[in-house]
Amino acid sequence: MTHTPDIKRPSRALVEALGTIGSATAAGELNLMGIRDTQIRGPVAHSKGRSIAGPALTLQFMPKREDIYGASEYDDPEKQLHRHVLYHAQAGDVVVVDARGDMASGVFGEMMLTYFAGRGGAGVVIDGCIRDSAEAFKLDLGYWIRGVTPNYHTQTNIIPFAVNVPIACGNALVFPGDIIIADDDGAVVVPIAKAEELLERASQHVEWEEFSKLRLSQGADLRKYYPLSPEAQGEYETWRAAQKHRR
Amino acid sequence: MTHTPDIKRPSRALVEALGTIGSATAAGELNLMGIRDTQIRGPVAHSKGRSIAGPALTLQFMPKREDIYGASEYDDPEKQLHRHVLYHAQAGDVVVVDARGDMASGVFGEMMLTYFAGRGGAGVVIDGCIRDSAEAFKLDLGYWIRGVTPNYHTQTNIIPFAVNVPIACGNALVFPGDIIIADDDGAVVVPIAKAEELLERASQHVEWEEFSKLRLSQGADLRKYYPLSPEAQGEYETWRAAQKHRR
Amino acid sequence: MTHTPDIKRPSRALVEALGTIGSATAAGELNLMGIRDTQIRGPVAHSKGRSIAGPALTLQFMPKREDIYGASEYDDPEKQLHRHVLYHAQAGDVVVVDARGDMASGVFGEMMLTYFAGRGGAGVVIDGCIRDSAEAFKLDLGYWIRGVTPNYHTQTNIIPFAVNVPIACGNALVFPGDIIIADDDGAVVVPIAKAEELLERASQHVEWEEFSKLRLSQGADLRKYYPLSPEAQGEYETWRAAQKHRR
Amino acid sequence: MTHTPDIKRPSRALVEALGTIGSATAAGELNLMGIRDTQIRGPVAHSKGRSIAGPALTLQFMPKREDIYGASEYDDPEKQLHRHVLYHAQAGDVVVVDARGDMASGVFGEMMLTYFAGRGGAGVVIDGCIRDSAEAFKLDLGYWIRGVTPNYHTQTNIIPFAVNVPIACGNALVFPGDIIIADDDGAVVVPIAKAEELLERASQHVEWEEFSKLRLSQGADLRKYYPLSPEAQGEYETWRAAQKHRR
Amino acid sequence: MTHTPDIKRPSRALVEALGTIGSATAAGELNLMGIRDTQIRGPVAHSKGRSIAGPALTLQFMPKREDIYGASEYDDPEKQLHRHVLYHAQAGDVVVVDARGDMASGVFGEMMLTYFAGRGGAGVVIDGCIRDSAEAFKLDLGYWIRGVTPNYHTQTNIIPFAVNVPIACGNALVFPGDIIIADDDGAVVVPIAKAEELLERASQHVEWEEFSKLRLSQGADLRKYYPLSPEAQGEYETWRAAQKHRR
Amino acid sequence: MTHTPDIKRPSRALVEALGTIGSATAAGELNLMGIRDTQIRGPVAHSKGRSIAGPALTLQFMPKREDIYGASEYDDPEKQLHRHVLYHAQAGDVVVVDARGDMASGVFGEMMLTYFAGRGGAGVVIDGCIRDSAEAFKLDLGYWIRGVTPNYHTQTNIIPFAVNVPIACGNALVFPGDIIIADDDGAVVVPIAKAEELLERASQHVEWEEFSKLRLSQGADLRKYYPLSPEAQGEYETWRAAQKHRR
Repeated sequence: MTHTPDIKRPSRALVEALGTIGSATAAGELNLMGIRDTQIRGPVAHSKGRSIAGPALTLQFMPKREDIYGASEYDDPEKQLHRHVLYHAQAGDVVVVDARGDMASGVFGEMMLTYFAGRGGAGVVIDGCIRDSAEAFKLDLGYWIRGVTPNYHTQTNIIPFAVNVPIACGNALVFPGDIIIADDDGAVVVPIAKAEELLERASQHVEWEEFSKLRLSQGADLRKYYPLSPEAQGEYETWRAAQKHRR
Repeated sequence: MTHTPDIKRPSRALVEALGTIGSATAAGELNLMGIRDTQIRGPVAHSKGRSIAGPALTLQFMPKREDIYGASEYDDPEKQLHRHVLYHAQAGDVVVVDARGDMASGVFGEMMLTYFAGRGGAGVVIDGCIRDSAEAFKLDLGYWIRGVTPNYHTQTNIIPFAVNVPIACGNALVFPGDIIIADDDGAVVVPIAKAEELLERASQHVEWEEFSKLRLSQGADLRKYYPLSPEAQGEYETWRAAQKHRR
Repeated sequence: MTHTPDIKRPSRALVEALGTIGSATAAGELNLMGIRDTQIRGPVAHSKGRSIAGPALTLQFMPKREDIYGASEYDDPEKQLHRHVLYHAQAGDVVVVDARGDMASGVFGEMMLTYFAGRGGAGVVIDGCIRDSAEAFKLDLGYWIRGVTPNYHTQTNIIPFAVNVPIACGNALVFPGDIIIADDDGAVVVPIAKAEELLERASQHVEWEEFSKLRLSQGADLRKYYPLSPEAQGEYETWRAAQKHRR
Repeated sequence: MTHTPDIKRPSRALVEALGTIGSATAAGELNLMGIRDTQIRGPVAHSKGRSIAGPALTLQFMPKREDIYGASEYDDPEKQLHRHVLYHAQAGDVVVVDARGDMASGVFGEMMLTYFAGRGGAGVVIDGCIRDSAEAFKLDLGYWIRGVTPNYHTQTNIIPFAVNVPIACGNALVFPGDIIIADDDGAVVVPIAKAEELLERASQHVEWEEFSKLRLSQGADLRKYYPLSPEAQGEYETWRAAQKHRR
Repeated sequence: MTHTPDIKRPSRALVEALGTIGSATAAGELNLMGIRDTQIRGPVAHSKGRSIAGPALTLQFMPKREDIYGASEYDDPEKQLHRHVLYHAQAGDVVVVDARGDMASGVFGEMMLTYFAGRGGAGVVIDGCIRDSAEAFKLDLGYWIRGVTPNYHTQTNIIPFAVNVPIACGNALVFPGDIIIADDDGAVVVPIAKAEELLERASQHVEWEEFSKLRLSQGADLRKYYPLSPEAQGEYETWRAAQKHRR
Repeated sequence: MTHTPDIKRPSRALVEALGTIGSATAAGELNLMGIRDTQIRGPVAHSKGRSIAGPALTLQFMPKREDIYGASEYDDPEKQLHRHVLYHAQAGDVVVVDARGDMASGVFGEMMLTYFAGRGGAGVVIDGCIRDSAEAFKLDLGYWIRGVTPNYHTQTNIIPFAVNVPIACGNALVFPGDIIIADDDGAVVVPIAKAEELLERASQHVEWEEFSKLRLSQGADLRKYYPLSPEAQGEYETWRAAQKHRR
């Protein structure tokens, strides 16, 4: 019988905290921490407005070779590895799939995604497609995918090959158990060993940004308000005091 | 005068029945029937939520060659072949265009599409673009296209060349009179000679799928409910009986 | 200190008049005036329903070279040229960016775009991406872009290099001060020296088009109504008279 | 039995004369005659040093559809249309193939190409690949192809579909019987109706070019010698006289 | 210390026999045996005229992530996995590399390739580049690569990640120990379990092909000689008898 | 009259010294000096065996716009900017062209290249094509180009726009006067301000490399000889002494 490893999950507190910083802050800070580019490029948000963070379950597809994966594979569902990655699903998990950018293979369909949503999954990041998209997009899941297709997962070019191994998704190397942060700007991989440091850096809140944004929206001078110039410091402090008073 | 052939249309009953199965079932069953890949890849749904089936009228574009298609062509609208494919339009027809993937040519604009909608056309599948998209998308038509452009159809790279001939659209070979099934997952070509068999196969309804989906959405075990295991058979039958009672 | 040139703006009346003709008419007429292809291809409308016209401020990115643009660049915001193009922003302006089609660089983020909106900017046309898109799309701006990314503007492959110089954006040559017309079909560059002639040509209103469109939507014969045939002339005149009466 | 049409061939004299002008002159002059771009782009010279001209036999491939072209097709070689285009081959002919840019299909192999060479064929222009390339390149044929592959012609994505019909090869529209001029710079399609005019234009020999090239190779001033300036006219005439004397 | 597994090598006799059949026969026969497409597409022959067969040592690259592979990696050469795949090299081996199609990374340079040649390696198949190509091409090795670059292997986008694991190279799935057949037409993967059957099929020599090729090269009728028609059978037998006599 | 600036050339000694280090050493050392990727990617060596270094004259093409560059442009050759970059040519110079990757435009033809060779030019690096390639490749010039075409430079998509301005060629930013090092591995841009440091680093000759290469070619252990291990130090010194003796 097929056995696939589970992942080690970080503390719920860490994941939830990372869920508040957004992909843009994550990508920028990780870059300043020395990792040039952590965006999982290719998959784009198909569930606009969702912002998630969660540990990565990984699924690797390979080019199809009929001597390895034949029609008979379907006789025993347990041999289908795209099911196995879902067997590990826990609430908040993110399934990340190296589908080789293939536009002719629907990695998951309605039944698999319904199951994943039922398990409390947070979302999927697929360098490829899903199928049954009309139904899938009604589920309570986030989708970062290349597109959709009517084709099933092994219909043409690729086959599921390994679960919870390091994968390449888009241009990014993702280890099982790394944390994914994803929102409308895209999906970013946070190496698990960097997660605490990222959180710490992202928490150094620039308090004056809200004030600056207000002023900019009013047509004020970019040079004066972003970054906040010494000249605008007093004005900011007055505003902040008023804000506190108002609350 | 230019004369172009009409197509032979299948029975209305057949087309309507095929309209209920969806592109994913069509693509999957046709694959199991021996046709590897019937998705018309490239064009994607721009009219989300629509699901259509209809016979294909076809239009073939070719690379522009100014000795064949000059400015004077415009003096006589009857010479413009993209009009001719629409002359054949009947209620429920689908216009399928090999526009060579060109992103700089608007195959149809508002006037042509208004006419097609007025004739009861079901939709267009274009390996290329339309123009006047803001107005076009208000019409009662389905759109599976690569994108939109302000350019007119022969402005840059391509010219309409033949009507109701076999064409390549995306990666698919489409004969005039084949049936197109299209929805949010994409567009699929059903060879007319395979239409009856496809319908029959698609009609073998898997009755337990609705039950399984319910259980999966409740977080139940994928192995137990999809496919339905012997272990869950009794539970399913009880549920089905209750369902019937409820109606 | 960095100094960048401003642009010469056309009369407000001219720009506003051009704002009514739409990108499709602009592209088609400019083609008939001898400029084969004026679409800025690549960037697509991400702010559906908006239709703008405005003079182009231009920003050119170049491939990143660390000896030219290093980490220290950030110490002095005034050295960041993507800020400088915004310093010139006036109400109705359009910022056009040659971002080299790069999908890994967010040319502008929320703060920059908030400032641009605060100055009354009409929109941005970027052969590349923005970041902070969820917030950006709430601003009163039009977006013609390739996509979105969490990455910041100089994070990976490109650096801002020049402001208000001639640039290539998509396949189009744009001079600072040219007029951009953009809507759901895409963005078109109007050479400033051709703007008056374009406007004149576009104003030759084909009065019968509204009538023809109505008839086409009712399923009437394309040959009879588009273009309007002599046979339909009387019917059209009757309709027009009735229309005037109704008003 | 399959029957495919032959082509009408131009006079041998015309073809031979065109064989002397080269693809660069052909493309340039045809452009000045109003046909913007006649290069068959994609196929490149794999038989360096050859320069040919000849009438086009055409072969069109289409996306593979197993209901149209099955394994049984091989039982009767006469059904294989890539053979039929060769049945028409006469000395000096050029076979032009729309192979859809496919890199996974070897349109012709050693046996077919040996036959074509045996019939006196001049060369092949294929928007795709051949196989058995080591042997094929030893034949007395010109090759303008995208590449080579071990795969046979219908192994993966495409099937031969029609012979001596108008085709798109690369970005060019080619009619059966058009003349192909091909050399190291690439392949150009000469519309048969333009062939005489092209020849006439190309024959207006610029006699001074040889002289200018000599001077440029000696490091002389480009402005003075190309195009030949009035200042250099006398020098040229002296040179020409000396040349004639020398012969 | 880093340890990587070796491969199980097939009998020398098997490999040598496969070395005589060529990639075209291998690809075609494997297709008829049910494996649709075994070409490793992307890498092309840079060592024209070589024809090899040998067991695959595999090397997998992954997208670069600076937290995994930093500058310090170079302090200990033993951590560099592209060296380790070569440690396993035996005479006749073929190194197959998934370099992710990257054109900015030179997977091996002169020193590594000199070592591999020194060990008797047969060749490399790389979905990417080598560097030091002028020197490398002088070595007694076969090269199937995408191109060349001055960049070193981890300079930009990728890092070596695993040795002798299943990899995707081009569009093909390659297991360590599979047999590679490569020549001017390209490289083909022979699944080790299919090698004997392939050899047997390829050995069913079609004796008349040589005769047919001769006749075709003389301008004879394709229909009569390929495949050999009953009509030509007598002629063939006469020719064969004469051939034997001649020897 | 059109005037374009010349470049400032480095000392001949510097250029010649850089000409000996090769593109691979240059790219690698510049990377270690902090410039990630200096390869001009896209153009590849078409003049195998040549190795050059020289200061860059630059030429920028822009997308064609017929209101800027019309047919009449040809009436006055002096308006053609691709001529002007050559007017500056001195012995050893390298012309670097941003031709926007266009495959349908022959940036230079035989006459221009003959002139450049006549002036002692070292080579051209073009992110695009040349024409008249059969004649061009006979000249004493190095070619790093994408390909060849029969089309002339402004025939289709692009026009020459500026001379000796900073350009993007492939993925690299090149300033006029930077030094280009190019050989069979490709072309690398050396920022002029980094040239001295690069030379110094490249000159730190690793004396044992020649010895190691010899041993590796004899099948010796990679771990022992590359890098040279302490274990092999004595053997190396013996070899070196013998070498000196031999000379």
